[in-house]
Amino acid sequence: MATYLLVHGAWHTGRELEPVAAVIQAAGHKTFTSTINGNRPGDPKTIGLTEAIQSIVDYLVENNLNDVVLVGHSYGGMILTGVADRRPDRIRRLVYWNAFVPNNGESVYDMLPPQYIALFDAIAAERGDGSVMLPFPIWREAFINDADLDTAKRAYELLNPHPLKTLTDKILLTTNTGERKLAKSYINCTEDISLPHCYPWHPCLSQKLGWFRLVQVSGSHELCFSDPARLAQAIMVAGRD
Amino acid sequence: MATYLLVHGAWHTGRELEPVAAVIQAAGHKTFTSTINGNRPGDPKTIGLTEAIQSIVDYLVENNLNDVVLVGHSYGGMILTGVADRRPDRIRRLVYWNAFVPNNGESVYDMLPPQYIALFDAIAAERGDGSVMLPFPIWREAFINDADLDTAKRAYELLNPHPLKTLTDKILLTTNTGERKLAKSYINCTEDISLPHCYPWHPCLSQKLGWFRLVQVSGSHELCFSDPARLAQAIMVAGRD
Amino acid sequence: MATYLLVHGAWHTGRELEPVAAVIQAAGHKTFTSTINGNRPGDPKTIGLTEAIQSIVDYLVENNLNDVVLVGHSYGGMILTGVADRRPDRIRRLVYWNAFVPNNGESVYDMLPPQYIALFDAIAAERGDGSVMLPFPIWREAFINDADLDTAKRAYELLNPHPLKTLTDKILLTTNTGERKLAKSYINCTEDISLPHCYPWHPCLSQKLGWFRLVQVSGSHELCFSDPARLAQAIMVAGRD
Repeated sequence: MATYLLVHGAWHTGRELEPVAAVIQAAGHKTFTSTINGNRPGDPKTIGLTEAIQSIVDYLVENNLNDVVLVGHSYGGMILTGVADRRPDRIRRLVYWNAFVPNNGESVYDMLPPQYIALFDAIAAERGDGSVMLPFPIWREAFINDADLDTAKRAYELLNPHPLKTLTDKILLTTNTGERKLAKSYINCTEDISLPHCYPWHPCLSQKLGWFRLVQVSGSHELCFSDPARLAQAIMVAGRD
Repeated sequence: MATYLLVHGAWHTGRELEPVAAVIQAAGHKTFTSTINGNRPGDPKTIGLTEAIQSIVDYLVENNLNDVVLVGHSYGGMILTGVADRRPDRIRRLVYWNAFVPNNGESVYDMLPPQYIALFDAIAAERGDGSVMLPFPIWREAFINDADLDTAKRAYELLNPHPLKTLTDKILLTTNTGERKLAKSYINCTEDISLPHCYPWHPCLSQKLGWFRLVQVSGSHELCFSDPARLAQAIMVAGRD
Repeated sequence: MATYLLVHGAWHTGRELEPVAAVIQAAGHKTFTSTINGNRPGDPKTIGLTEAIQSIVDYLVENNLNDVVLVGHSYGGMILTGVADRRPDRIRRLVYWNAFVPNNGESVYDMLPPQYIALFDAIAAERGDGSVMLPFPIWREAFINDADLDTAKRAYELLNPHPLKTLTDKILLTTNTGERKLAKSYINCTEDISLPHCYPWHPCLSQKLGWFRLVQVSGSHELCFSDPARLAQAIMVAGRD
């Protein structure tokens, strides 16, 4: 039985992944969820990528987690990549779930199509506290397209403003993930159009992992809300040896 | 509960979509099917795209349909786009189902790979009445590849010659669908190779919608024959708010 | 009821396809499996592509097989293509299952991404008997990603060293398969990343068939081990008229 640490994406906290973790735990694994610095209630929204990564490194150390299957969603791929660069000794396998795969010197912004950059810049300018939110219509159509409207609304109410700097900061790595000897998996939800399919999560970003295991599952970017059990099964297939 | 109007593709009539409409109706929605001008028995095969579009605009008005979820299949995407440009006030959402998405000035021919244009031109030249038919071997292999031979044959017998001019006429739009504020969905049948997958319905054509909801379902271009209930479910997921 | 001949891929023999053949046979079809020259126990590993193709031509003739649905996996696509060029009179339909589709003058090496060529050349240089093997980590992650570790290990033990010359020899054809009048199908396992998805089996290689029937099924490159019954169903959908 393995140890899983689930790392959420932008606008989320670890709490939204608890229903997923519960299914993995029921199958006999140890599971952990944590909230990245910048997404916890009361966190300043001026947090940058380095502090965000450090908070998950600290979580690993404080909880003395070893041999961890580290799972990252979306923006969580930045965190995974940074943690793997700083503490590869604690990791059994990296599981990217529709997640960004940065090479050294890349930011989330470097992997986003221009329509998102224009949108986020405009929203952040209006908010003025360093944070960005996702407009509901885009959430409903492009992020949680597989759920009904009620589920989409309830999930949207759980979101929190995200520190923009973590999306614009360029990551510093000693080694790109593609060159690391670590075991790697990529979970691709086949209806995830949060990145448009002419520039998709898989294979555009997944291929930066080098050799990796592919797991595909039907669902949107927010399968954690629309079908947490199905997502948990995919994570266990991706995370096993 | 919503109001659905299903608009067929080339060589079809509204009648072939009735088994699909029946499932949507049984779920509590109002459903309508109509046959586009040019595809009704006895229609002259010299009909062009403008008259084809107008016939569905007329259907909306004559039946006093408002707040309609307008669903279009294949060539029906041309009609959807034209109707949305003329009467956006009557539409709740556009649902393209493996359908063409033209921008202003584009024809179906502009979105077809060269092998189809050569084929259709040759067939139309031989027929000489302005119409084109689809040869059975292509129907069987590239249009209804998920059905058995009997289903493929029975469905083929329901097809009617299609007015070629509706495929070569360029659409006139005041606004491209991608710039419209209307809600939009795209249903992609994942085994649909009526357009080859190196130049596919989704994402090549779907991306012209701008922000849209993606629904994917297993099946060929002719899921209306091979599994009408599965298609109806996909339409309801695509059509809901 | 039809006659199926299943042709295996590199490192395999006909024996590994017997569980698949058994399901097809139980559905009422005649089924045959054969092992390509170069993959039989004791075969010299200096065998080239011409002898490999000839061995399946001989099998057809010796067993007096006619009207055959010829199914080829991976490297088996080279064999299918060669057999169809030499004895099209004996074939009812070609079914490529995540298989190479060579045009005249092409080798497997011409269709492989550079990382495989570097890998195979290095392994063959070390072995020194003309054969190449697949390292277990690549087998586990990129070939049989949908199975558990035990299945992956048990299947790996069944593999045999493959004659490299069959992968580097260029095929000689009188007619490319895309120009042949033969019925053709392509089965694409959607999680098959043995070829990376930025240069995938389908549609990159499948499109060389010209008009063909697409069948897709969830699974890795080695669905014959991870779910032989599901593969058999896909083969029967691909192989029917």
